[in-house]
Amino acid sequence: MTDIARSTRVVRTRAELREALGGLPRPIGFVPTMGWLHVGHRSLMQRARAEDATTVVSIFVNPRQFGAPSDLEQYPRAEARDVEICAEEGVALVFAPAVEEVYPPGFDTTVSVGAVARPLEGAARPGHFEGVATVVAVLFNLVGAERAYFGRKDYQQLLVIRQMARDLAIATEVVGLPTVRAPDGLAVSSRNVHLSPAERVAAPVVHRALAGAVAAWQRGERSADALRRMMSDALAGEPLANPEYVSVADARTLRELEVVEAPALLSTAVRFGSTRLIDNEPLE
Amino acid sequence: MTDIARSTRVVRTRAELREALGGLPRPIGFVPTMGWLHVGHRSLMQRARAEDATTVVSIFVNPRQFGAPSDLEQYPRAEARDVEICAEEGVALVFAPAVEEVYPPGFDTTVSVGAVARPLEGAARPGHFEGVATVVAVLFNLVGAERAYFGRKDYQQLLVIRQMARDLAIATEVVGLPTVRAPDGLAVSSRNVHLSPAERVAAPVVHRALAGAVAAWQRGERSADALRRMMSDALAGEPLANPEYVSVADARTLRELEVVEAPALLSTAVRFGSTRLIDNEPLE
Repeated sequence: MTDIARSTRVVRTRAELREALGGLPRPIGFVPTMGWLHVGHRSLMQRARAEDATTVVSIFVNPRQFGAPSDLEQYPRAEARDVEICAEEGVALVFAPAVEEVYPPGFDTTVSVGAVARPLEGAARPGHFEGVATVVAVLFNLVGAERAYFGRKDYQQLLVIRQMARDLAIATEVVGLPTVRAPDGLAVSSRNVHLSPAERVAAPVVHRALAGAVAAWQRGERSADALRRMMSDALAGEPLANPEYVSVADARTLRELEVVEAPALLSTAVRFGSTRLIDNEPLE
Repeated sequence: MTDIARSTRVVRTRAELREALGGLPRPIGFVPTMGWLHVGHRSLMQRARAEDATTVVSIFVNPRQFGAPSDLEQYPRAEARDVEICAEEGVALVFAPAVEEVYPPGFDTTVSVGAVARPLEGAARPGHFEGVATVVAVLFNLVGAERAYFGRKDYQQLLVIRQMARDLAIATEVVGLPTVRAPDGLAVSSRNVHLSPAERVAAPVVHRALAGAVAAWQRGERSADALRRMMSDALAGEPLANPEYVSVADARTLRELEVVEAPALLSTAVRFGSTRLIDNEPLE
């Protein structure tokens, strides 16, 4: 282990976390993750490091936000490598708790967000955003950071968390950062590891479909249905891609649009084999 | 206004609250109320004053915890008198926000507690405890107190709030204090003001019914059904009393018991005309 690595402290319990946080300079920038860290997470840590005196990362694969148990079990884990990445990015503290530490025996509280959590991922994954809002409320309260950083790839998640934190008066500012992409356009995601080589080659169609619709919008297309059709057609051209939804929605409410005025969001969920990818592009 | 009264500051917005809290000595003891303050609230403030450096009271009639709009409208209000009482009890800060300050436009988050919120008042008043858990989560996060004080008259509420705060890792300790009673045994409650003179004379039957069952338990009665029957019989003896439920439950889970072992709770909800009173007694 290098000197850099040794400067990152890993704590596993609420008590250790509290004690460790007491000695760290403010403001604190917090990056909540489910581990299997990649360049997307690195970009969040880098922003935190630039804006805050201390960077704290949590690594917790949250069982409450998974539907099928198999999805939870298959979620990739590599804590030692994750901690090394945190050390490289100058993270002071990693909180890597066991499930019982986040959800003590008898845990029985749910935080749920309304309208903005219902469509798209909320409709496709019942209970998912309740799991997200609940765990993030717990983590925000445990860490007490000034700012927390999330990727815009999970755009709806960002809206749900922002709404939850604002509504519950949690004093952590929720910051959304741009999606990080591979050179071929594929949004970086922990789930990409499950793609077969052929699926990996096919997967950039997701971003191409979005980018095509963005280009059409830039050329003046304002019909949401036309943009949806464009995305569907692009995805249909790739035999390995099984689209779950394509959406053209209001960027604040996520309500589906007929005419694209104001800020909008193009988004889609696409399966490649058993791997489900999501991506989006704003129209601003 | 006396000097004492002038030493109590009233703030109405989140921003004013935050600013005022910054200058106050810790620890802070917090007494959340819906106003119409009485000796029960005074006992909470007195405990806060004894235990904490600063006492903060909130006065907020929370629309989310009322079922029928008429109940909300009829809830008694008297802010000037409430502030005077706070001043008499040495309260440093009163937070008396408008509804839009607690629930800003677009507010759309719900905090719900599971099993312990379901029976008794949870069953009788659908949505009530979601309203309670949500507003208390907001208030706890806004005030950031070391301790918060609640009366045991609302015993289930106390359990729900304790569970919520523990689960969401809110660093406010939830303290429950004994029910304050009139000399004739009636539990002090803001709702007592709605009793007609005849109903006020009849209302102590609630406590007598509980006390009779406590006495039977002390004499060795361990059948929950026998205790329930005793309470029902006592209430049936008072023509103005319309019981909604009588319960003999586990004091921690609020599950109905068959045999009273371990800590248990006797509780009941009784209507007198349009006024609904609740009360309880622990069996320890």
